[in-house]
Amino acid sequence: MDVKDLDINSGIAASALVDQFEGTGFQATNIVRAVRLIRRMQQDKAFIILTFTANMAASGLRSLFAKMVEKKMVNMIITTGGAVEHDFIRSFEPYQLGDFDLNDLELNDKGINRIGNILVPNERYVLLEQKLKPVFEKFKDRHVSPSEFIEELGRHTDDKKSFLYWATKNNIPIFSPGITDSAIGLQTYFFKQDNKAFGIDVTADMKRVEDTILAAEKTGGIILGGGISKHHAIGVNILRGGLDYAVYVTTASPFDGSLSGATTNEAKSWGKITHEADTVTVYSDATIAFPLIFSAII
Amino acid sequence: MDVKDLDINSGIAASALVDQFEGTGFQATNIVRAVRLIRRMQQDKAFIILTFTANMAASGLRSLFAKMVEKKMVNMIITTGGAVEHDFIRSFEPYQLGDFDLNDLELNDKGINRIGNILVPNERYVLLEQKLKPVFEKFKDRHVSPSEFIEELGRHTDDKKSFLYWATKNNIPIFSPGITDSAIGLQTYFFKQDNKAFGIDVTADMKRVEDTILAAEKTGGIILGGGISKHHAIGVNILRGGLDYAVYVTTASPFDGSLSGATTNEAKSWGKITHEADTVTVYSDATIAFPLIFSAII
Amino acid sequence: MDVKDLDINSGIAASALVDQFEGTGFQATNIVRAVRLIRRMQQDKAFIILTFTANMAASGLRSLFAKMVEKKMVNMIITTGGAVEHDFIRSFEPYQLGDFDLNDLELNDKGINRIGNILVPNERYVLLEQKLKPVFEKFKDRHVSPSEFIEELGRHTDDKKSFLYWATKNNIPIFSPGITDSAIGLQTYFFKQDNKAFGIDVTADMKRVEDTILAAEKTGGIILGGGISKHHAIGVNILRGGLDYAVYVTTASPFDGSLSGATTNEAKSWGKITHEADTVTVYSDATIAFPLIFSAII
Amino acid sequence: MDVKDLDINSGIAASALVDQFEGTGFQATNIVRAVRLIRRMQQDKAFIILTFTANMAASGLRSLFAKMVEKKMVNMIITTGGAVEHDFIRSFEPYQLGDFDLNDLELNDKGINRIGNILVPNERYVLLEQKLKPVFEKFKDRHVSPSEFIEELGRHTDDKKSFLYWATKNNIPIFSPGITDSAIGLQTYFFKQDNKAFGIDVTADMKRVEDTILAAEKTGGIILGGGISKHHAIGVNILRGGLDYAVYVTTASPFDGSLSGATTNEAKSWGKITHEADTVTVYSDATIAFPLIFSAII
Repeated sequence: MDVKDLDINSGIAASALVDQFEGTGFQATNIVRAVRLIRRMQQDKAFIILTFTANMAASGLRSLFAKMVEKKMVNMIITTGGAVEHDFIRSFEPYQLGDFDLNDLELNDKGINRIGNILVPNERYVLLEQKLKPVFEKFKDRHVSPSEFIEELGRHTDDKKSFLYWATKNNIPIFSPGITDSAIGLQTYFFKQDNKAFGIDVTADMKRVEDTILAAEKTGGIILGGGISKHHAIGVNILRGGLDYAVYVTTASPFDGSLSGATTNEAKSWGKITHEADTVTVYSDATIAFPLIFSAII
Repeated sequence: MDVKDLDINSGIAASALVDQFEGTGFQATNIVRAVRLIRRMQQDKAFIILTFTANMAASGLRSLFAKMVEKKMVNMIITTGGAVEHDFIRSFEPYQLGDFDLNDLELNDKGINRIGNILVPNERYVLLEQKLKPVFEKFKDRHVSPSEFIEELGRHTDDKKSFLYWATKNNIPIFSPGITDSAIGLQTYFFKQDNKAFGIDVTADMKRVEDTILAAEKTGGIILGGGISKHHAIGVNILRGGLDYAVYVTTASPFDGSLSGATTNEAKSWGKITHEADTVTVYSDATIAFPLIFSAII
Repeated sequence: MDVKDLDINSGIAASALVDQFEGTGFQATNIVRAVRLIRRMQQDKAFIILTFTANMAASGLRSLFAKMVEKKMVNMIITTGGAVEHDFIRSFEPYQLGDFDLNDLELNDKGINRIGNILVPNERYVLLEQKLKPVFEKFKDRHVSPSEFIEELGRHTDDKKSFLYWATKNNIPIFSPGITDSAIGLQTYFFKQDNKAFGIDVTADMKRVEDTILAAEKTGGIILGGGISKHHAIGVNILRGGLDYAVYVTTASPFDGSLSGATTNEAKSWGKITHEADTVTVYSDATIAFPLIFSAII
Repeated sequence: MDVKDLDINSGIAASALVDQFEGTGFQATNIVRAVRLIRRMQQDKAFIILTFTANMAASGLRSLFAKMVEKKMVNMIITTGGAVEHDFIRSFEPYQLGDFDLNDLELNDKGINRIGNILVPNERYVLLEQKLKPVFEKFKDRHVSPSEFIEELGRHTDDKKSFLYWATKNNIPIFSPGITDSAIGLQTYFFKQDNKAFGIDVTADMKRVEDTILAAEKTGGIILGGGISKHHAIGVNILRGGLDYAVYVTTASPFDGSLSGATTNEAKSWGKITHEADTVTVYSDATIAFPLIFSAII
């Protein structure tokens, strides 16, 4: 097809803008292709795995993840301990907007923690500690899996913009293989001092995640950002020959050999994505790209 | 303000989505801030300089640039020889969409040139050669400035999606200090062999650009991408103490000391942007970010 | 000081080149600053935490990590399950060099997995399975911590270029909070089917890592790459007020709010790095920057 | 070949380290490949074009460029007006080292201009103005080409670390198609007010550069950074079918379709690099990568 000049009027719908992106070139074109691939996943009734990183759960994207879980547009979430922590805290109290170039020493003096241009006052972590207590108590006598722990968190909030809430309600599992790398992890340090029988057995989730994945006819991944969430989503698909569809939204580059920057083709060499799979990679900050994609698939 | 969870329904207007971006965090927030700063430039009747790189003129963004010139939303363009070349060619024949990972050796065999995922068949350059001839002829006996040459190009097309067309029609100057680094430049090599009196005097535009800039009450820059276009826009403002407003949309990082990645703050040290200026930088491919910005300022 | 022109002759020592980098500017200057900060950590007898990502353990950097553990230049390692897996496999059989742009479908057909320009034949994973068996057997009746499991791995190799080997020998703990996100994790899935009492309790390491960190007079971080390794190293220092020194080597940018791209200043807002700490960030692929740094600190 | 673990002792020569990089993986491997390709260019007596950006001429790399011109290791330079300006100024007075995060408003108050972590006091530009005067005077009655103007600059300095000095002495042309985008360009604005016959004809250099390139048996490019220097080096080779060898050192990525991030393969589609050419791209800040490459080719 031809490259097409954009035709944008003041009232244009976001989804119409996305449609026009097809002929725009560069990453705009990849936005449309991502939309189409997600639609195909839906039409083919693929088992859809959504992954994202902690910072995204601290941003306005959180409610989009929640909506996808509410509407059962995804069948599994794989994310970090930090993402779980941010969603849970924000289901009680909001975070604040700041700036990327605020003075971090002054912020530290004021007890304010910065995530890019998002601010988290220390009180949020005091709150987290209180809210986590009854959850820990429930498991004090045994080893729990991360997904079981996270499911319980979803019972302790009723915020409709929380993906934890909807995941528990709709019985959609959330996996977090590195869960202790988070404020939740720090709390386990304190809790375990008086509750030695408590533990988090990460191997328990290997069974749960693999049994689920292996039972799926087709699997698709919507993979926002990199790190352990990205790798786990593609890695657990190896046993079934790989994801059948994959959309990556990323800001990382392949040149350093890192998993975060690794291409969908690299994943195909491993069988983390199937040989035949259609894939799309959008190079963009997810806070810009994903709302656009979402507006077209909702 | 609080970080606000996005609320996106299927019919949401692009401009409404942009409004919501304010509370989203990360680069989404910067999109809104860019919109507001451009609106302020407009309200304060600043003299607005738009810059972009060649690849953007090969993409669907081209018509947005044209629209801004048609509507006199910008007062000056600074861009590369390649951008002028792409706009001019596309005012006669379209470019085509491809893929980032096409086989470039096969493309070369087929006479197809690739710009990211945009394709330009060799015939487009045959066409360019023909279309440039009468323009060169007009100046065969003298030295012309790049802006004068470009103005003449605008008279040789009547494509309403061409920024060259509208710039000439609306008497909005287009500066291109590195114009010979382009297919136009290659044509000067052939043309000059028989027309030794022909030349392009780039110092002539230094006078024109500086006289124009120095006459402006306030100046603002909408600077998409890096390279010579970016630097020239901020560099020519030094004599008046710097740009009073600046929006950067960029994919480059500051760590290597390059001008393309240089921050608005670095520009303030030079007086390329004034001490007091408000500035916003959006880190994104312009094909995603700029249509969103445009939808909110149109 | 002045920017100094480099003076390089054919026999120049790498460490002498690094010394000259001080006056070179941009990231070369940051290489020297990283060297000096690591030397200060050593002089101040700081407890040094080294982190790196899986791809680096698949590269030639692996033996530098091993050497630092052998020479007790570091006191703790925090890394990913993938890094442990690569070091362990490579202690028996080598990986191979390839190219970033090999045909991944052909590689997949041949049973070769790609990590950037490094290749891992499937047989390496058959080998891993065999070599892991006696390790799993040892823990079949109980829950083990990641660090204890990794320590046992070190007893099953005698490769002097393995950091696992030296860590076990020198009693230097290796933490890996996301250990099951790896081929080791996949093996736990199979092993657990017949050994239900087996598990990996990640909270056990929270106690070990915090007790160790809290006992240190001063802590320093040499943090190569991002992801869970980076975050865990700075996150577990919160309880003691942060790292007293930090060197980052990274290819990620801060604009997306991700932890991988988060600056040392952002970490200061959290108390993950102390208010007063000296920090240096080198923006570079670690395979280039770290050997240079190493040549100057060895 | 196998991935090889690095073996670095305290006295290791930089060139020996580079040799070891072959088996290291990721960008380290590309450093060696770049070295070998440059050696092949030399053995095959290719006509070698070196390009770099302005910031590099402000850094310690400048003397390496000068050395390559002194030793006739390169046959042509293509660079920016800013690079010419920095080399010329620094042939009289040094620049200073600073920090990437200095307060730019304070720097502006003090009259200090920042380029990444390099500082240029305003007095350097007063000096430039004085030193440029006799050069401008020489050409006051006519149109000069950029390369002729730059050649004259080389006669006005005797700094052995200046590439301008050696280029003039060794009759190696320096092309700068966008020369007026610089402080030199600003000076033309003032000079032309009283010297209307003065001009810089950029088409004159199209003839000179093409005649030179077309006469070469084989051409090779050592292309550091992006922008107009990069594009011009590959663009002027189109008429001869492309560069026969190309080494890129870059920090830019291909995803946005920009020329700065465009791959060597993309250049092959255009015939800017020949179909058969061997090429290597090193993804790194040039201040780290190029001294390593230089140490191995000197």
